[in-house]
Amino acid sequence: MKIVLDYLEKNKARYTRELCDYVRFPSVSAQPKHKKDLAACCQWLLKHCKEIGLEARLCPTEGNPILVAKTPRKKGSKKQHFVVYGHYDVQPPEPLELWTTPPFEPRIKGRSLFARGASDNKGQNLAHLKAVEAYIKTGTELPVDLTFVIEGEEEVGSKSLAGFLNANRDELLCEAVVISDTGMPALNLPALTYALRGILSMEIRLEGPNRDLHSGIYGGSVDNPAMALCQLMGKLRDKDGRVAIPGFYKGVAELSAMERKEFKRIPMNEKEYCEFMGVPKLFGEKGYTSLEQRTARPTIEINGLTSGYQGEGSKTIVPAWASAKVTFRLVPNQDPAHIRVCLLKYLEKICPPTVRMHVKVGHGGQPYIVSPTSGMAKAALKTLKAAFGHDPLLMREGGSIPIVTQFKKVLLADSLLLGLALPDDNAHSPNEKFSLDCFEKGMKMSALLWQELAKV
Amino acid sequence: MKIVLDYLEKNKARYTRELCDYVRFPSVSAQPKHKKDLAACCQWLLKHCKEIGLEARLCPTEGNPILVAKTPRKKGSKKQHFVVYGHYDVQPPEPLELWTTPPFEPRIKGRSLFARGASDNKGQNLAHLKAVEAYIKTGTELPVDLTFVIEGEEEVGSKSLAGFLNANRDELLCEAVVISDTGMPALNLPALTYALRGILSMEIRLEGPNRDLHSGIYGGSVDNPAMALCQLMGKLRDKDGRVAIPGFYKGVAELSAMERKEFKRIPMNEKEYCEFMGVPKLFGEKGYTSLEQRTARPTIEINGLTSGYQGEGSKTIVPAWASAKVTFRLVPNQDPAHIRVCLLKYLEKICPPTVRMHVKVGHGGQPYIVSPTSGMAKAALKTLKAAFGHDPLLMREGGSIPIVTQFKKVLLADSLLLGLALPDDNAHSPNEKFSLDCFEKGMKMSALLWQELAKV
Repeated sequence: MKIVLDYLEKNKARYTRELCDYVRFPSVSAQPKHKKDLAACCQWLLKHCKEIGLEARLCPTEGNPILVAKTPRKKGSKKQHFVVYGHYDVQPPEPLELWTTPPFEPRIKGRSLFARGASDNKGQNLAHLKAVEAYIKTGTELPVDLTFVIEGEEEVGSKSLAGFLNANRDELLCEAVVISDTGMPALNLPALTYALRGILSMEIRLEGPNRDLHSGIYGGSVDNPAMALCQLMGKLRDKDGRVAIPGFYKGVAELSAMERKEFKRIPMNEKEYCEFMGVPKLFGEKGYTSLEQRTARPTIEINGLTSGYQGEGSKTIVPAWASAKVTFRLVPNQDPAHIRVCLLKYLEKICPPTVRMHVKVGHGGQPYIVSPTSGMAKAALKTLKAAFGHDPLLMREGGSIPIVTQFKKVLLADSLLLGLALPDDNAHSPNEKFSLDCFEKGMKMSALLWQELAKV
Repeated sequence: MKIVLDYLEKNKARYTRELCDYVRFPSVSAQPKHKKDLAACCQWLLKHCKEIGLEARLCPTEGNPILVAKTPRKKGSKKQHFVVYGHYDVQPPEPLELWTTPPFEPRIKGRSLFARGASDNKGQNLAHLKAVEAYIKTGTELPVDLTFVIEGEEEVGSKSLAGFLNANRDELLCEAVVISDTGMPALNLPALTYALRGILSMEIRLEGPNRDLHSGIYGGSVDNPAMALCQLMGKLRDKDGRVAIPGFYKGVAELSAMERKEFKRIPMNEKEYCEFMGVPKLFGEKGYTSLEQRTARPTIEINGLTSGYQGEGSKTIVPAWASAKVTFRLVPNQDPAHIRVCLLKYLEKICPPTVRMHVKVGHGGQPYIVSPTSGMAKAALKTLKAAFGHDPLLMREGGSIPIVTQFKKVLLADSLLLGLALPDDNAHSPNEKFSLDCFEKGMKMSALLWQELAKV
């Protein structure tokens, strides 16, 4: 392995230049005007993969092409096979006036490379490609077979990925999917993310009168759908911050002492966290820390409220209807289908007979967890320690990563989430940057990871 | 009086034609394109008043002119003086496609005259003018002095009226203001409206994070302003339909046995009322009938709710803020200033420390009541019985009529509300109509009213 790691060390300046080339493409998937830039970006990636020595191709989709690049392998290889996932599309750079330098003109300051997409996700997926380059160019045999899948629609919902996975299922079946698209709390706290929250979305609409009524003439003799909605919604969360739907907590895996101890290692300053969000005081489920509340505990959020008059001044009406958009974040091992049943039953029970209720339940996303003590997890942790020189963390994330669910569903494969983004990377925000330390340590991690995984 | 009543009877066909001329003007005050039509309409009115024999003039305002027309009187007249109020502007006719015949082409069908403004308010104010014509043209001495004030901005908030009343205060000081701009339950149920509800409007805004937050990353560790708003609003009304603000009911005049008996005379079919509004079930303060709830009991209405994402589908955010527009309808003798204090105190008490609350309280409108047993009320009731041939009702209305408050404030005068509109007149809606029976009986009522009021 020394030859591989030496190669990485010797070529790091060139790698940084190549990352600069990669982030110069304004590959903004949300904006149709950048369609050509996305095409140019994946052509660059294709060429780059071929130069590295990978067997690469672009798979056209209804949206942007997906790059598939395979390490050279013998027919009938008995090596373990891993998929490495990444994406070459980026978030829109707007608002442009908040950028210190233009978003697609990379700038290095200290140990940071500033550019849209530097951290999310070009820097992270390039780190994996560069590690493989080191194997190939030094003639070192890779102990596993790898297939890179780098898509161009992650920032707009990965609409083409499911179809692609299904169409190429046989080629992509693997031990696990390695994804570097999450975060680590600090440079000295490398992390393996082993759990994600699931989601269940719904819209509750209460209908009262068949038109907005004059509140002077009718008000008092007919229920007010907006008030009925407030009272209904108010009953879904108790004063201790718990979701008040009977049956909701069924299956919730309580945090183990080991997990809670791990979480305590993550630096957390409540005052700073309040200031960062701009809230006067924190609020969350009693008995849990903020971190636990937002990563390992389920919650209900009202995402939007709509009713009646919303313009300037006042309009004296009893509105005809009121609606709330709601999402539940679910944790292992809650079942969205079960929650759906509990929810509908409870809403039916508490909805007053004076309004008509319409509930639209969206698709649920399963919460995700892989054992933090499995062989693969242990291999990943060992690698992180070796690459970063610090004891790695076991982390949960509060969001959902739909692609992880896709991989599980189509390929039946777990994902190893080895994020290289730091909390101040400004992903999705102006002045996005990527730490060159993370880039270099990330390449080392990737190179070492295949050795460790091959032993599992 | 016979000669006056005979004159009215003989000329009723002509009067109907004149009302047709009056409603042909599309005097829509809300629509700038009709500015000229409003001018033409009040010119017609001015000419008409002069032909009747009134001393008439147009008072220019920043908006549309106000017609002032006085019955001939001797200098230093000792007769009682009454102001008769009406308005020549009308509601917009839209949606036009729902009209059976064009809104400004009057059509008589049976005993109804269909046209925008026929009932609200041209037919009603013309009835008063025609009664006075009968006095003047038959050489019958009016037992009182009258001043007609017919404005052109009632449908857009009577913005110029207060200034006009103040500027012409001495000329307008009077015993009472007679207004026919309310309703009566049926042709055989003429009514004197003796009370109106007041109003207090406010907007409550709860601010949480300084921006919309990703609900996956932060949800659970920070309060959700939309949920906090729902829980806050939900506490303002109890399950019995009462406003749950301590001190809110202070001063509320309980309905007398006489009043409740009067209300029972008004035909009310709960099933039909539900169907008319399109609600599955009625709701209101326990212990009161629907009619009492919407006319004589105070209430809280949420007029609008706004928070977060309101578009198609879902957006996984903890919204930065949430707001509710609210109006309270107040009854005699609640004091808006007192309610304001109670409200703010209660909101401060129940608002959680996890959000920042901003309350904007709008101006309050006093509830209005005149004694239903005063001399003037008795005179009005006697007149209604004589004109309509049925025992009149004593009625309350649930809305507020801001001009009534203006008259009270500037002229210190009570209003006699003798509405001639029937419930099916479609005021403010397509196919507005005015009953020719109400028109004719209304003229008779007006002619007789001055006789009775002169005796008080």
